[in-house]
Amino acid sequence: MTVTLVNGVRTNALDAADRGLMYGDGLFETLRISQGKACHWGLHMARLSAGCARLGISGLDQSVLEAEVLDLVSPVENGVLKIVVTRGIGDRGYRPPAASTPTRILQVHSAPNYPAAFAADGITARLCSTRLGRNPLLAGMKHLNRLEQVLARAEWRDPAVAEGLMLDTFGLVVGGTMSNLFFVLDGALCTPDLAECGVAGVTRQRILEYARRQNIPLHVARYTLEDFQASAEAFFCNSLIGVWPIRRLDNQTWPIGDMTRRIATALDSEETAG
Amino acid sequence: MTVTLVNGVRTNALDAADRGLMYGDGLFETLRISQGKACHWGLHMARLSAGCARLGISGLDQSVLEAEVLDLVSPVENGVLKIVVTRGIGDRGYRPPAASTPTRILQVHSAPNYPAAFAADGITARLCSTRLGRNPLLAGMKHLNRLEQVLARAEWRDPAVAEGLMLDTFGLVVGGTMSNLFFVLDGALCTPDLAECGVAGVTRQRILEYARRQNIPLHVARYTLEDFQASAEAFFCNSLIGVWPIRRLDNQTWPIGDMTRRIATALDSEETAG
Repeated sequence: MTVTLVNGVRTNALDAADRGLMYGDGLFETLRISQGKACHWGLHMARLSAGCARLGISGLDQSVLEAEVLDLVSPVENGVLKIVVTRGIGDRGYRPPAASTPTRILQVHSAPNYPAAFAADGITARLCSTRLGRNPLLAGMKHLNRLEQVLARAEWRDPAVAEGLMLDTFGLVVGGTMSNLFFVLDGALCTPDLAECGVAGVTRQRILEYARRQNIPLHVARYTLEDFQASAEAFFCNSLIGVWPIRRLDNQTWPIGDMTRRIATALDSEETAG
Repeated sequence: MTVTLVNGVRTNALDAADRGLMYGDGLFETLRISQGKACHWGLHMARLSAGCARLGISGLDQSVLEAEVLDLVSPVENGVLKIVVTRGIGDRGYRPPAASTPTRILQVHSAPNYPAAFAADGITARLCSTRLGRNPLLAGMKHLNRLEQVLARAEWRDPAVAEGLMLDTFGLVVGGTMSNLFFVLDGALCTPDLAECGVAGVTRQRILEYARRQNIPLHVARYTLEDFQASAEAFFCNSLIGVWPIRRLDNQTWPIGDMTRRIATALDSEETAG
């Protein structure tokens, strides 16, 4: 069951003139709810703020948002919180209104029912034929223009395939349809640079910070599919799935490596520690 | 005043779980209403259908849509009809539902209040710094992922500047923020190829067909900003503005040329002929 709050009111009704619908003029966050708490709240809010600043969406009162979220998630043992913030209601036309009030949409969903084996034993993935366009102006943000991900995720329905790997239009590796990608190359932890496309995930950020704290050799760079295929281990990550080791992508197989285990364990213990 | 119809019901209320909001998973059309008729209905519906096919949105009943539109526009002397079609309501996650019913949102707006001088005497335009990302998978469609246009249109508020010229990330000329671009180079009518980005407008299509019928030398190709700057005349077009001759872009000026006058006149007479 889904509970929805639009601008603080329990309703599913959004104004059809909202620019979030008309132009995808907004941002979203997806958070895990555990024991009545929205996990990694600060990191998600920092990303949301940064996105609002980049899109020029002003006037979001984070204290109001936080109060609404506290209210919604405190009775929830396990679930998912989705937060959508749009530029608000506008007239016809691309130009943002001189003054607009951002729309806040909060949804509480039940926890996703991914098989526990995905995290424990790893997953089968596929290479998507849908490519990601490159635009530094939008890169990294979790904005509402997500047709590329929709088309990529529509490529398969086989439930045994858990995630799809996406390349950009130059053929560089970006990540999963709904997740970021890490892999180990020559002993170093590697993840694609997201300056041109992709979503800079909160879990990706946590892993980068962990690797830096632990002095794990780390490269954030441009990688081709061949670079990725040369990896010794690889995994997808996001706030809901945690870490999913990649065991197979099309015809190639990987073991679950030590680095993947170590990072999954570290994230888990952070999670428990709150 | 705006009249809104959501799935045939007079309401502004859209379900917040609509994928049009969540992912920009849908398409739109903007039509001129003149004397109780939605102008160039067939061309707009053909484009909408083609877009639905490309996005895999099925189940839109065009006869229902047409009946709703007839009902809405017949009392309207002059105005704007906006049609939004989304993939419909979905669960959380990018994957399109196995079965979904498209959402139809119809809005009737008052006619835009652009100064008559824009069409008669031409406009001042500016070069936008916001660039368009290139992705053939999405190019040409009037889909709901329009953040690039929003950011471009947010670059200026001076009402004396009527439109902005947009380049793609390669520096190729694409068109206006809300319009297509034509210009005359060495006596030939030229318009950017839209295989990598941009919206293939209905008015653009009408102009292409007119030029072919009239044996006007015509090139649809990749153009740099320098190509455009070498043009003898130039104009923006869309279904609402018709033709706006470009008289100035930043420091360069153009006369209103014969080709521009001829095409504006031809479009006008088609309009009157229905």
